This record gives sequence, structure tokens and C-alpha cells, in this order.
Amino acid sequence: MPLTENEWFTEAFEERTAFSARITKKLYEELSDFQRIEIFQTEAIGRVLVLDGCFMVTEKDAFIYHEMLVHPAMSTLPDPRNVLVIGGGDGGAVTEIVKYSNVESVTLCEIDPLVVSSCRKYFPAVSSGLADPRVKVICEDGAAFVRRRPGEFDLVLVDSTDPVGPGVALFQRSFYEAVRDSLTEGGAAVFQTESPLFMERVFSMAFQDLGAVFGPACVRAYLATIPSYPGALWSFTFCSERHNPVAAAPALPSEVSTKLEYFSPDVHGAAFVLPPFVRRLTQQSQ
Amino acid sequence: MPLTENEWFTEAFEERTAFSARITKKLYEELSDFQRIEIFQTEAIGRVLVLDGCFMVTEKDAFIYHEMLVHPAMSTLPDPRNVLVIGGGDGGAVTEIVKYSNVESVTLCEIDPLVVSSCRKYFPAVSSGLADPRVKVICEDGAAFVRRRPGEFDLVLVDSTDPVGPGVALFQRSFYEAVRDSLTEGGAAVFQTESPLFMERVFSMAFQDLGAVFGPACVRAYLATIPSYPGALWSFTFCSERHNPVAAAPALPSEVSTKLEYFSPDVHGAAFVLPPFVRRLTQQSQ
Repeated sequence: MPLTENEWFTEAFEERTAFSARITKKLYEELSDFQRIEIFQTEAIGRVLVLDGCFMVTEKDAFIYHEMLVHPAMSTLPDPRNVLVIGGGDGGAVTEIVKYSNVESVTLCEIDPLVVSSCRKYFPAVSSGLADPRVKVICEDGAAFVRRRPGEFDLVLVDSTDPVGPGVALFQRSFYEAVRDSLTEGGAAVFQTESPLFMERVFSMAFQDLGAVFGPACVRAYLATIPSYPGALWSFTFCSERHNPVAAAPALPSEVSTKLEYFSPDVHGAAFVLPPFVRRLTQQSQ
Repeated sequence: MPLTENEWFTEAFEERTAFSARITKKLYEELSDFQRIEIFQTEAIGRVLVLDGCFMVTEKDAFIYHEMLVHPAMSTLPDPRNVLVIGGGDGGAVTEIVKYSNVESVTLCEIDPLVVSSCRKYFPAVSSGLADPRVKVICEDGAAFVRRRPGEFDLVLVDSTDPVGPGVALFQRSFYEAVRDSLTEGGAAVFQTESPLFMERVFSMAFQDLGAVFGPACVRAYLATIPSYPGALWSFTFCSERHNPVAAAPALPSEVSTKLEYFSPDVHGAAFVLPPFVRRLTQQSQ
């Protein structure tokens, strides 16, 4: 069936596949210094944040992405106190992190202040963690910021857009090195690394580059299903020179576990199991 | 962006979300006695089979669906010799089953002969197993067929469409009872049970009804990611009065394992791990 243009928002991926949602109202539109920001109300998947034409957050499935970006690392590290989120201006990752009472500081470094302010207004639940007193929001280029903060963070989460526009810098090896250097001893970093099904090459290259920077034995990919992202089978890559996320059962305090919809200690273990075709992508030399 | 109608095929789910693929050619179109059958060549996801406007098979992700429908049960049962597939006229499930040399007979019961013949022609790899001498194709209503064959099959796989049109009968409790009665002692059945994310109610009802028919302790849901299906997070339900698919490591002969892209013994265990929101859907009383 044809989709009436003013009733549907469509994200076309490389002009070859597309995902659409029927919209009831456009709530916000602004051309920032970095990108076009749109927020729609939809019938089926709640409010959606669209950056440069790509779905970034939907109220329907954002919990999967944010829980899976944050909790595998938070439940692997023994005592993560100082956490940095690069990108992630919607606040969803921060909202997951502040569920841990032992966290002392969360720094959100998002390049685009209009993403933060519009999400605060239109996604109050997703962004609620930004109001926590332990959170500091910095609006600048995350790649530049992290270079100035060596040895400072127990955990760095890279919540980037796709490797286009402002997201390009967050898929470069020099950025991976800066993230590694920003970690405390025994720290860890997690990168969203795209779909191994629809973006095989981006996934494979990011995984290999991270292996070159952190050490091949120190990077592990894991998966979650994000229906509003192209390919739906989505990858994250966990990097740590000291901690192996699959060596021991993750420790998830009950103050956190009771609030989660997707993540659990069992889901943690399952997410690191890679289907053979994904495992092969992690083994290819470039 | 708007999608030009003659360049894209779009499946709208309940007219609220949609998935589209850019087509290069329409290869086949026929209105059968049961449904509209279309086969397109696409740029990004290979050839696609569309029944009544819904993506059923894409060359890009069909391996995930077919491997996950077949191998969890095939590797759990100690010696499945006689297997019935209901629906599944594309032949993809049969192609997975005939990889096991110990299988003696595979019966495919598909209501629509035009689905079988068109897939034989346009999806030669997916349907290749139909040429195996152990395979018998029967074109009739699977619900009626299975009622006449009590105690006959070690494994029944229900590869149905969505619960609309010809698929409605395959989501009824009387059908579940007939499938149960068609099993040999110690047999098992697997049903595709839709997306727990986008079709919560269908999934939850199917799971509860299967539990009522097979016994609540005898049904177990598992998950896979199928990007071309609405919601992408897709469920199957394994039912057996004797065999517990998560009690022991699955046995996968190397003649099979070397041919698989998605399934492995580790993926088996991971697939049965349910995120908390899915677990809750399996626990709801109606």
C-alpha cells in the first residue's frame, strides 16, 4: 500500500529498505547547528525522535536500546562510580545509570544542546535521569571532550548516531584510543556498533578497530533486538582490558533489577552468544 | 521521505507501522483460491515472497526464521524420524529438516499449491529440500489433515502465516489439540507465535492456550530476530510432554552444524532466555 506522505514518517535506509510509522502530530522541528531534529507523536510506537531523517528514539522500543547499552557493563564492573556518556542527548542511557545508588557522577557529553532540551520537554520519562543531582550535561564534541580527560572514567558509553554527519567522528580509531585513555585502570567502554545483518561492514570494521585499540582479547560483541533500527538485530561492543563480561555472573542490585523490562542476568549471558554469521564477522581480518 | 509506489513494496502492520523494500522487478503475481501471492526482486533483501500484502520470506533473513523454527526441536528430540510441517509452503523449514540424515519422512502440508510451485521456481535455494526423496508435499488444510493422523509424528512444526485469512485456523485451541494428538509418545511441536513486542495479545493468548493443551509445564517460548516481520523480536513456542529443551545441551550433528548461519547449541540456550517483559506475557492469566 502507498503511505500518504503527510500521515506517515518514513526512514529509508540507504534508499533500499524503509521503516515507517503513522503520525498523528508533529510536535517539534528544528534545524540545529548539527542536524534536523523532529519529534512526532505516532499511533503505534509512541513519541519518536528523528535526527536527520533517522529514528533515534521511540517510546515503544527505547527501553531495549538503553537497558542493553548500560546494564551489561554496569553489572560487570565491580564498582563503577564515574560514568561518561558520549552522545545520548535523549537522556535514556543516563536514566538507566542513575538507577545505581553507588554511582557518584554521570557526565553526558552531547554535541547538540537542542537534542537535550527537546527530549527533556517531549520525552519526560526517557530523559528523567537528567534531573538527578549526580548528572552533569556538557554540550560539546564528545571526541574532543574525551581527549582532555585521561584516566578519569570507570565506564564510558558511546551512544552515537549512525556513522554519518556528526556521528562520523565516533567511529574513528583515534576516537577509540581517546576513549581507552579516558578510562581508569580496570575501566570499560561500550560502543553501539550498528547492525551485523544490514551493516555488516560497519560492524565488522568497528569490531576490528576496537580490537586493535583495546587488544583483540579485550573486545566482545553482544546483541539486542531494536525493531525501529535498520536490520533490527543490533550490536554493542564491550571493551575492557581487565573485565570479561561473560566470565562470571553479572551482579545486578535489586534496586535496579526490579525496574528493568529487557535486561536481566540471564539476558546478559544470552546477549553475548553470537550466531555463527555474526561470529564470522568478528573474526574477519580487514 | 515519500516512497514512490511503483518502486517500493510496503507492508503496513495494522496501518500503524510499515516496512518497505525497494523493488527492481515484480517476478510473479497470482490470486490463488486462498490469497494474493506476489514475488518481487529487491535491491537490499533479495527476492521476497508476499502473501496478502505481508512479507513472508526474504532471501536476506529467511535463514533466521527457518533455522530457528526447526533446529531447537530437532536438536532436543533424541531421534526424530517422522516430521510434519504445517504451512511453510516456501519449503524453507523442510530444507532445514532434510539436513538430518536420520530423518525418514517429512510431510509438508500447505493449503495453497501455488505457494509451493511459485517458491520452487523463484526461491530455488530456500525450497531445495522439497526435492529430497524423503519429502512428501500435500496440498490441503493442515488443520483438517492433522486430525486424521493421530500418533504419527515425532515432530510437528507449525509454520503459519499471521492469524488472518487462511492462518486463523492455525491459532485455535482445537487445532492445538489435534497437533498434540498427532504426536508419537515423547514427540514435540513448535508453533510460530508472533511478536511479543508488537502483538503482545496474540503471543500471550497463543502461549496460554498451548499451555492449556499441552500442560503449563510443557510449553516454552523462545526468541529470534526477524527484521522483515513486524516487531522484529519474534517468538516460537516449543511444546512437549516429555522433553525439556533447556534441561540438557542440544545435540547437533556436525553434518548439520556446519551448514548453519544463525543456530548453534549456544544460540539454542540463549534463545530460550526471555527478557522480563516477555516472561511476564507468558505468566499472565487470561
